[in-house]
Amino acid sequence: MALLIAAPHRETDELARLMVARMPNIDLRTWPEISRAEDIRFVLAWQAPRGLFAKLPGLQAVSSLGAGVDSIISDPEIPSHLAIGRLAGPRLAANMAAYLASMVIARWKDLPGFMRDQQRGRWNQWAPEHPPAIGLLGTGQMGQKAAEVFQSLEFPVHGYSHSGRGPDGVTMHHGDTGLARIAAASDFLINLLPLTAQTRDILNQDLFANMRRGSVLINVGRGEQLIDADLVKALAKGRPACAVLDVFRQEPLPPEHPFWAHPAISITPHCASITLTAEAAELAVESYRRVLAGLDPLGRVDRSRGY
Amino acid sequence: MALLIAAPHRETDELARLMVARMPNIDLRTWPEISRAEDIRFVLAWQAPRGLFAKLPGLQAVSSLGAGVDSIISDPEIPSHLAIGRLAGPRLAANMAAYLASMVIARWKDLPGFMRDQQRGRWNQWAPEHPPAIGLLGTGQMGQKAAEVFQSLEFPVHGYSHSGRGPDGVTMHHGDTGLARIAAASDFLINLLPLTAQTRDILNQDLFANMRRGSVLINVGRGEQLIDADLVKALAKGRPACAVLDVFRQEPLPPEHPFWAHPAISITPHCASITLTAEAAELAVESYRRVLAGLDPLGRVDRSRGY
Repeated sequence: MALLIAAPHRETDELARLMVARMPNIDLRTWPEISRAEDIRFVLAWQAPRGLFAKLPGLQAVSSLGAGVDSIISDPEIPSHLAIGRLAGPRLAANMAAYLASMVIARWKDLPGFMRDQQRGRWNQWAPEHPPAIGLLGTGQMGQKAAEVFQSLEFPVHGYSHSGRGPDGVTMHHGDTGLARIAAASDFLINLLPLTAQTRDILNQDLFANMRRGSVLINVGRGEQLIDADLVKALAKGRPACAVLDVFRQEPLPPEHPFWAHPAISITPHCASITLTAEAAELAVESYRRVLAGLDPLGRVDRSRGY
Repeated sequence: MALLIAAPHRETDELARLMVARMPNIDLRTWPEISRAEDIRFVLAWQAPRGLFAKLPGLQAVSSLGAGVDSIISDPEIPSHLAIGRLAGPRLAANMAAYLASMVIARWKDLPGFMRDQQRGRWNQWAPEHPPAIGLLGTGQMGQKAAEVFQSLEFPVHGYSHSGRGPDGVTMHHGDTGLARIAAASDFLINLLPLTAQTRDILNQDLFANMRRGSVLINVGRGEQLIDADLVKALAKGRPACAVLDVFRQEPLPPEHPFWAHPAISITPHCASITLTAEAAELAVESYRRVLAGLDPLGRVDRSRGY
């Protein structure tokens, strides 16, 4: 019985070291060194090679190293009996909430404006009178933590989810009408939705047309949820006025992509919330132990729903 | 019976308008138009002229328009029978917490580094592996809200207060030894202490010598708590590595002051948390009604303690 780490674009030595420290007898392999493929019961995957899962006859479960499972589910050769999970722990969600809080508050309080004032030696007291309205597209683990932090800051919070269910105190919306409503109600519209057939291209011109003048779009979901050309056109109209993008259709974002030099777009390179090695090692070992015991991996997702 | 707003350096028309809307029969005056001084029972003060309170024979209470009462208490002519309060509501504290969260997270995640990377078209994934340790000097209303927000982000939080008492989950310190300990334990050391004889000059070379290499000092208390020259020397040694300052001994900060051009100092012009007019109007009317009814003003402070 063995566990395989298949994350070709990630440094995983420290993760492996911490996992061995937690479970000294673990038979842990790192792609592409699979050796006996039939031993492998569990794969920790991050942008794993297409078709890999179908080549492991003893495989029982796959877990994403991050919060999203779309790159696992979208593998056309993935066997239907496999259980799919994810290693999204509380610190991963808190990390995302920290990124979102910082991006929102810096723009709400115009902190860059104070930096420019300092360079000019200018003492210009200013503060916003009203808290910004936050719209969270997606109220799963990440969205709930973000809601908690924004509510703690006394910001009004709206949420959008497939079911229309969400945390206490959050004004919830669902369906096409709800999507238009949350866009119209938010000063900061934040996409945290999982990538599914329903959410692909969801950040499009119809949505932008409903956003507030001067509002901000933040995409920390997936690049495939945003229609890039629609955003550029919408920014020219001021709805939204600017965008913070952490995820892109192609990553790394190609050098020639117009987002790089757009004055109203802030780019971070898909690291709003990177898997924390210590937390991931703890959750990975626990998940592997569960699978060996015939249980579901942690954070098991519903493949038909896609999240 | 009348209420006087004495805030010479603040625009208070909107505050007055909202107070009248809440209490239509209020006899509200704005300094310097006092008219019959003997009518005045209550003053809302912000950097009020020295000696003013002693000239109002019918005065029963004074309330600060902000969170600090030091400029009221330090008036040598203030009659000893006056009750002193403040209008610090939940939104004021949340506003401060938002400022602090944004300043901390931006430095912890090096968000300015991503802005520089974007200018160069550079895709450089990076994220901190460990949450930053927060040290809160002062765990009153502001410190408690900040602690709540940082704990929600899963950051370890230390606190320092005169009594050593603080919120649940916060590692508390007190006394001189405690001050050295919290400095040594914090990646971000945040001063929220009220200005008193005990806290004047508290941010000095002895404290800085105990701070962590690479740590950050944030002063949102009072300028008189920081020894400016000590900070410049300490920054040269990297303890702290940088400072975020919102308050200064002289405000506006004089154009010739070395802080303006210091590369490791970020300046905001005493607006980390500015009194929110709607909240202040609500609290001011309630406080005035209490005083007219013979009760303490809201947020009554202990003059012997100074906060």
